[in-house]
Amino acid sequence: MAHYRCDYPMRWSDMDAYGHVNNVQYLRFFEDARIEAFGAHRAGEDGGSMLDTGILVARHEIEYLKPLTWRPEPVHIDLWITTLKGAMIEVGYEVYDAPVDGPRVRYALAESTLVLYDLAAERPRRLTETDIARLEGLRGGPVPFRARRRKSA
Amino acid sequence: MAHYRCDYPMRWSDMDAYGHVNNVQYLRFFEDARIEAFGAHRAGEDGGSMLDTGILVARHEIEYLKPLTWRPEPVHIDLWITTLKGAMIEVGYEVYDAPVDGPRVRYALAESTLVLYDLAAERPRRLTETDIARLEGLRGGPVPFRARRRKSA
Amino acid sequence: MAHYRCDYPMRWSDMDAYGHVNNVQYLRFFEDARIEAFGAHRAGEDGGSMLDTGILVARHEIEYLKPLTWRPEPVHIDLWITTLKGAMIEVGYEVYDAPVDGPRVRYALAESTLVLYDLAAERPRRLTETDIARLEGLRGGPVPFRARRRKSA
Amino acid sequence: MAHYRCDYPMRWSDMDAYGHVNNVQYLRFFEDARIEAFGAHRAGEDGGSMLDTGILVARHEIEYLKPLTWRPEPVHIDLWITTLKGAMIEVGYEVYDAPVDGPRVRYALAESTLVLYDLAAERPRRLTETDIARLEGLRGGPVPFRARRRKSA
Repeated sequence: MAHYRCDYPMRWSDMDAYGHVNNVQYLRFFEDARIEAFGAHRAGEDGGSMLDTGILVARHEIEYLKPLTWRPEPVHIDLWITTLKGAMIEVGYEVYDAPVDGPRVRYALAESTLVLYDLAAERPRRLTETDIARLEGLRGGPVPFRARRRKSA
Repeated sequence: MAHYRCDYPMRWSDMDAYGHVNNVQYLRFFEDARIEAFGAHRAGEDGGSMLDTGILVARHEIEYLKPLTWRPEPVHIDLWITTLKGAMIEVGYEVYDAPVDGPRVRYALAESTLVLYDLAAERPRRLTETDIARLEGLRGGPVPFRARRRKSA
Repeated sequence: MAHYRCDYPMRWSDMDAYGHVNNVQYLRFFEDARIEAFGAHRAGEDGGSMLDTGILVARHEIEYLKPLTWRPEPVHIDLWITTLKGAMIEVGYEVYDAPVDGPRVRYALAESTLVLYDLAAERPRRLTETDIARLEGLRGGPVPFRARRRKSA
Repeated sequence: MAHYRCDYPMRWSDMDAYGHVNNVQYLRFFEDARIEAFGAHRAGEDGGSMLDTGILVARHEIEYLKPLTWRPEPVHIDLWITTLKGAMIEVGYEVYDAPVDGPRVRYALAESTLVLYDLAAERPRRLTETDIARLEGLRGGPVPFRARRRKSA
């Protein structure tokens, strides 16, 4: 079990008219974090890329915990896999600062549901044994969301 | 009970390198839809605006149902209130086309949790009777998400 | 000679942390204005589209005249052709408000140089007689930039 | 004379539906490059920041030389000052790759005109001797634009 950690450089334009990083931009950060994490995880292994076959975003869920203001220094993003099943990969994220002299400051928690998709056949495709072996190293626990989730209808 | 309907003009740049409207941009659309819906609902009533006192985004949840490609014609966004309680407003959204000669085509379903915030006092503030009376007209049912939701931990 | 006029809806997120429409976003507006103007000009004529063969952006120049703040009402963008020569189309823009009871308020003036490009052959392609005939109706004068331009080196 | 060099990380979303970094995004890159260059130049000197008093963007000019595709590695941006006069700072930019085994690959050349602005007094303010002394180290030659510039009207 391991989390992939990105040091993500914000852009000044990530701030909105309220002077905080806009809530929508966090999902933009996660887009790059996924590309980096899956790419980095891939390197040094078998060289193939799941991205070659297509991954669709099926769902996002995000909780905002604390406002974030732009500064030149990157913000940290941890990324880990919460579910690997069928054609589905679920990814957890935490956006935070890790001061040397104090506790971690959390800005957001989130989860994305991704679906492996065979672009040629135009349908979802199941994770192979190879896919699972390759992603196993990024497995982590459930996202510690604060909001009580509704039961399914 | 009523849904507020926006005719939302997409931008060509909402598309990403895959040639579809990027998943992150939907939340951008909702930002404008909320401003329009709350502003429009306000007009002709008492003239005050909840936006004057500050509304924070605390949570988003979104399901993507079908890829959307840019075209000059606007896409429809329905917006309605699913919860009004304490300091919290929950808003549902549906992104869709409504062809004259066929069934509605759904691209996404989503929900946002907003918190009324007293910027001067730096703390959440409860919905007043006036707020609730004003927003009552936008009440609707729960968002018909497809994914089975996890129970709370 | 005619200018094509867009009524362009801004997005709340076009504002930056200074609370004004960010200088970069004006070029985003022009991207959509070009697509609308060239598409609208095309409709009702021969049905073909220059966009089918590819248009590359080779140059932009923009002057900012007055800060613009987001509001629900669209801003006006005039677009016209300043040069048609060889493989090159130059387009002028003016971003403005036109109050009923006063003079036009100008926010920006700009010009783009576009190059027709044959994507299959991977080289610029000259404007045909048909292209020129089709675009003739959008011809206008030079952009009334305020800055004294440097002579060529 | 010295150029300030940024190693600028692109985002996947900087690409548009054509699969290239969108022409508008280059100006977004320059926004961050200016903040970094002026901030970095400031550090270790007198600690004051010109940004504290406000800098307005008055003009941009940009030439696109070669399409750029996203990759995980940063692109280089050189930034230097071409003019310091009155209340005006003009900044040149070059976007490029510098392969170890070959010539520099140029993607774009650009220039911005910035105006120092006294936000309290709501008017431009002249560069002081201190401002000029501080910026002197970033002085460089004119931007080697390729397009022949029109004479002033």
